[in-house]
Amino acid sequence: MTDAKRAGRVAFLGPEGTFTEEALLANPPDGQHDPFPYPSIREVMNAVRDGIADLGLVPIENSLEGSVALTLDLLAFDFNDLRIVREVTHPIRHQLITRRPLELGAITKVLSHPHAYGQCRTFLDAHLPGVEHEAANSTAQAVRTVSRVDRPWAAIGTRLAADMYECTVLRDDIEDSVENRTRFVFLARDDAAQHLPDAACKTSIVCGIDQDEPGSLLLILSEFAYRHINLTKVESRPSKLALGHYIFFIDFEGRAGDGAVAQTLKCLACKLPWLKVLGSYPA
Amino acid sequence: MTDAKRAGRVAFLGPEGTFTEEALLANPPDGQHDPFPYPSIREVMNAVRDGIADLGLVPIENSLEGSVALTLDLLAFDFNDLRIVREVTHPIRHQLITRRPLELGAITKVLSHPHAYGQCRTFLDAHLPGVEHEAANSTAQAVRTVSRVDRPWAAIGTRLAADMYECTVLRDDIEDSVENRTRFVFLARDDAAQHLPDAACKTSIVCGIDQDEPGSLLLILSEFAYRHINLTKVESRPSKLALGHYIFFIDFEGRAGDGAVAQTLKCLACKLPWLKVLGSYPA
Repeated sequence: MTDAKRAGRVAFLGPEGTFTEEALLANPPDGQHDPFPYPSIREVMNAVRDGIADLGLVPIENSLEGSVALTLDLLAFDFNDLRIVREVTHPIRHQLITRRPLELGAITKVLSHPHAYGQCRTFLDAHLPGVEHEAANSTAQAVRTVSRVDRPWAAIGTRLAADMYECTVLRDDIEDSVENRTRFVFLARDDAAQHLPDAACKTSIVCGIDQDEPGSLLLILSEFAYRHINLTKVESRPSKLALGHYIFFIDFEGRAGDGAVAQTLKCLACKLPWLKVLGSYPA
Repeated sequence: MTDAKRAGRVAFLGPEGTFTEEALLANPPDGQHDPFPYPSIREVMNAVRDGIADLGLVPIENSLEGSVALTLDLLAFDFNDLRIVREVTHPIRHQLITRRPLELGAITKVLSHPHAYGQCRTFLDAHLPGVEHEAANSTAQAVRTVSRVDRPWAAIGTRLAADMYECTVLRDDIEDSVENRTRFVFLARDDAAQHLPDAACKTSIVCGIDQDEPGSLLLILSEFAYRHINLTKVESRPSKLALGHYIFFIDFEGRAGDGAVAQTLKCLACKLPWLKVLGSYPA
């Protein structure tokens, strides 16, 4: 059996029916694959590192909530053998879901993850004022509960969860912001084969700087500017190693192995205490 | 009655008994003040803008979860009349809380906000394996529920909430990471009097760049480096105004009105489409 025919396991941040699975279904990997939910980002990465899964899918940045610092820090410090091989951006759309069709005015309780509830405040204030809110561990759990109880309760969750639990989508897209979207990354083991297309690519790196001195970030960025390499993200984070020290996450256009990019990375490696390429992937 | 004697309202992100109130109690404003919880970050800012509160306290960055993008974006785009006047950093410590003393082995359910639960996974896996988890809208709500039900349930919450609801702290500091801390900012109206001490200060700005071209961030940073001004944070975020455009949040040492900083800001304002000083405050 060739690799292409084997159904590779894809570990994703679970549970089933939440946004990471929605993103996976909307952006499936090539070939056959076998999606499997894990309860935490670290456990997704463990599964890929240990060869239990061929790919892992985790969120890395949300347009409203910002970077998923845990994902960044695990990639920077704890998982040296993983690589970003693809990025996908998925819109975050919340649905008002009930067991069967009913009037909005009949709803006596809304169940959801606190984040999802907070992201639908305008709709809830306008259409379900004063209705009790009950927290759930995930949007999928909320939909599951609503599907099993014969009461006029509503869940806020994904369309995927509504389908999974054979529920009704009572109102579409009730989120406050249509700009709510999450960037996810597919991770693979560092030694896995990767065939990058000739099309435009992006590369993500993380690096440390020696001292918290003026101009240190300038030094890094000038190496890119000198070679006309376009940056798409720069983020400093406090280093876990010492107070007042910073690490930088930088995304830029180009492939790690290609001429100008390879030169830039070489020049940076000479000047910085450490630098790690998190991966090159189609832009 | 002088200003100093009037009890100014301090709006904070509620509910009572969660980490924002803990941070407020640990870092009280000068003079008498009257803390008041609001259900969302936007509502805290509304209260300050509308003069209902003199100060507002909101989270802006967590060491594990990253920047609170909502706070940054509201300050950048929606609230032109607010200013950061102080920052405080508060450790995030989770307590295992019960109605009365009992054995760990007797606990049948753990209640908490999903985030808090996720941040105590090591303790829970080791000491309460397989025990049911019930989500709550906040850690404070979890403690309140546990305080009112005569069952062997435990909540994960703050020491403040344990005190508020006269509960027992069964186990101290059960969080996975001792590095878990949140940076909060006090906000005031832009026209409120501010007396900065002579001691070290920091300034936060946000700015847009015209085009997503190589070197634009370099241009910004070189103005700081030229004047030996130390940066403490740099973060790019996608602009809401147009796809592929970025805005930058930058924190640096110094006061907006002082010589070298004032010059830097003037030079930047000439080159950039927009720049906003979010505030200067003690470092």
